[in-house]
Amino acid sequence: MADDLSVSPLAPAGGFPDLPAIAGVRFATAATCIKYEGRSDVMLAELAPGTAIAGTFTRSRTRAAPVLDCEKKIGMPSEAGAAIVVNSGNANAFTGEAGVASVKAVTKAAAGATGIPETRVFTSSTGVIGEPLPHDRITATLATLVDELDAHGIADAARAIMTTDTFPKGAGRTVEVDGSRVRVAGIAKGSGMIAPDMATMLAYVFTDARISQDRLQPLVTAACDETFNRITVDSDTSTSDTLLVAATGASGVGVDGSEAFAAALAEVMDDLARQIVRDGEGASKFVTVGVTGAASESDARRVAFAIANSPLVKTALAGEDPNWGRVVMAVGKSGAEADRDRLSIRFGDVLVARDGSVAPGYVEADAARHMSGEDVSVSVDLGLGAGAATVYTCDLTSRYIAINADYRS
Amino acid sequence: MADDLSVSPLAPAGGFPDLPAIAGVRFATAATCIKYEGRSDVMLAELAPGTAIAGTFTRSRTRAAPVLDCEKKIGMPSEAGAAIVVNSGNANAFTGEAGVASVKAVTKAAAGATGIPETRVFTSSTGVIGEPLPHDRITATLATLVDELDAHGIADAARAIMTTDTFPKGAGRTVEVDGSRVRVAGIAKGSGMIAPDMATMLAYVFTDARISQDRLQPLVTAACDETFNRITVDSDTSTSDTLLVAATGASGVGVDGSEAFAAALAEVMDDLARQIVRDGEGASKFVTVGVTGAASESDARRVAFAIANSPLVKTALAGEDPNWGRVVMAVGKSGAEADRDRLSIRFGDVLVARDGSVAPGYVEADAARHMSGEDVSVSVDLGLGAGAATVYTCDLTSRYIAINADYRS
Repeated sequence: MADDLSVSPLAPAGGFPDLPAIAGVRFATAATCIKYEGRSDVMLAELAPGTAIAGTFTRSRTRAAPVLDCEKKIGMPSEAGAAIVVNSGNANAFTGEAGVASVKAVTKAAAGATGIPETRVFTSSTGVIGEPLPHDRITATLATLVDELDAHGIADAARAIMTTDTFPKGAGRTVEVDGSRVRVAGIAKGSGMIAPDMATMLAYVFTDARISQDRLQPLVTAACDETFNRITVDSDTSTSDTLLVAATGASGVGVDGSEAFAAALAEVMDDLARQIVRDGEGASKFVTVGVTGAASESDARRVAFAIANSPLVKTALAGEDPNWGRVVMAVGKSGAEADRDRLSIRFGDVLVARDGSVAPGYVEADAARHMSGEDVSVSVDLGLGAGAATVYTCDLTSRYIAINADYRS
Repeated sequence: MADDLSVSPLAPAGGFPDLPAIAGVRFATAATCIKYEGRSDVMLAELAPGTAIAGTFTRSRTRAAPVLDCEKKIGMPSEAGAAIVVNSGNANAFTGEAGVASVKAVTKAAAGATGIPETRVFTSSTGVIGEPLPHDRITATLATLVDELDAHGIADAARAIMTTDTFPKGAGRTVEVDGSRVRVAGIAKGSGMIAPDMATMLAYVFTDARISQDRLQPLVTAACDETFNRITVDSDTSTSDTLLVAATGASGVGVDGSEAFAAALAEVMDDLARQIVRDGEGASKFVTVGVTGAASESDARRVAFAIANSPLVKTALAGEDPNWGRVVMAVGKSGAEADRDRLSIRFGDVLVARDGSVAPGYVEADAARHMSGEDVSVSVDLGLGAGAATVYTCDLTSRYIAINADYRS
């Protein structure tokens, strides 16, 4: 794992951002040695009474116990406070009855330590699948965590939830609604096993906006569809994907129907989603795949993901090889409606192919120059209709293999 | 490309098999420097009058010009002879009108050189996509090829059609039908861009059996579904997949309704399909993924391919890591009906997990021992119904990246 300590070359310059403090939220973290030594691996977020909580979860058929527990609790109206407990190092997934018992033990202990009802304690676990969660290490630290709760602890929280991530991920926005300021700040983790639905990851977004759960949930669902559900690292979908969005209302500013708030929320989620791609295991390039001219939006999405998930396209990107034939292949295999003779392809601004064959005047060196950069775009126009979609991915390098061929060792 | 010269560690011991000669078929090959230097890259197969020809083709929406031409011709009844012309090094795919003209030029020249009607000349091209096929090199060599036709040329033909393949692939069977002998011999190429439908590959199977085209086609379709459509290397589907099966009838033995013949045909196709996996780019392990207990056969297939195509499962296989959590993940993402708490997983004979958690008495070293071998099996029982499927794949190694990050350079 020594190799994992080096930070992704695509990490945002300037490190973890300076996030606005969100009134009504406090954080604490602890190092409990669930798997990792010498780093924090548990985070507690405490949310003020009246906080609305919305969320989206993996659609995997083998969802982990904490996900099933969160799904059950989300949307239950309550004026009580809330808590989020997250551990890294162990996913508590495919752990049978023991896994359910671990969730129960953690939520019960967190309720006891915080005074928050158990139905308002949400947990996530991320890391190795199939090993029993040593939940005693988490429950033993909860009283200390409550003592240490800190409104400015979000950066530490972002670190505590990392697994193979090479940098902590945070994003924030401050926006005006009816002349008053509202703040949004979020953290996320994710690096491999990243694909919709939804991107494999944990993400927690906090805002001091005032909004009811039933108004917040559709905003979150829609924004998730355009952000976390538009990224892929390796086409693998986790058992534990969780996004929770908590609106404490502590600013006193109502945001019902505010487009500015909806945009700020979506921007924070988009920022976090892109950071996950930028930390894709072994990634050396951030790749934007844009598809236009599809017969439908769902077709556009199918084509975009077929390109973004193709090992042959991803290795060509790693090799800085403008091998557009592989893009044609991926369009063909997507199953979406396509007419070979209407297809056009660009790498960056360079028109590579159009109307079914190589573009007149195409010079491979121009495309290769674009591909030698750190941010690469692949654009396909299908020439059929108005369907469009953009997804984000990274290249596939031998470092991905090195990281994943012995993740557990 | 120097690395590509080393033969896959999974190549069959003993080299190219000793195949039965098929009466009514003759082969010739030539080196025309379409892309490769110092090796043959064109093969001609000449088939006697009365030969029935069946085939299956890629379902890609961006099918190459030769595929579209073959599809048009297959199934047209004819008593004339037939010819198959195959080149490696250039796929003549996504080449627009020029690609169609190249097919026309080759089929016309082959018809002229062999005296076979153009509607009975089938061509395939395999190699780089998107570059114009220098078809003059092929047409210029056809007269010589006809002069050199040889009933024993099948091994050379297998070599001429290789691209990134590290060994030529051949398989044969001799079977008794009504007391008389019938022979089946086939060749194939394929190494990367291998996934159904159908496996990315070219395959040509010849038999001296007597059978009409309309009886042969359903046999071929059914056998293809159980063989070439059950393998995957990298989930990528080519624009050029072609399987042609030619029955010359020269043995005089009718095989209508013969189960022995159908079985021999399927066995040859299965043998070739497995060899393609054994030559998977960078492969170090041959992996059998078996799924049982699914709610339906199509569900079983979805789960099997989700496992076989998962980069995280494939890298774990490369790392000889019995990381069964990734198998659970793949089951979950497949979309097939699954109940986490009924799932069981085996690596080889080692029961790893059952009823939703790790199996009692499971010792990781036992599973690791199985995975250290060259032939690895991953078996999943979903515990729901009678649906079953088996697919073959290989592991994902850094050599796959090395081969594909600069295939064109």
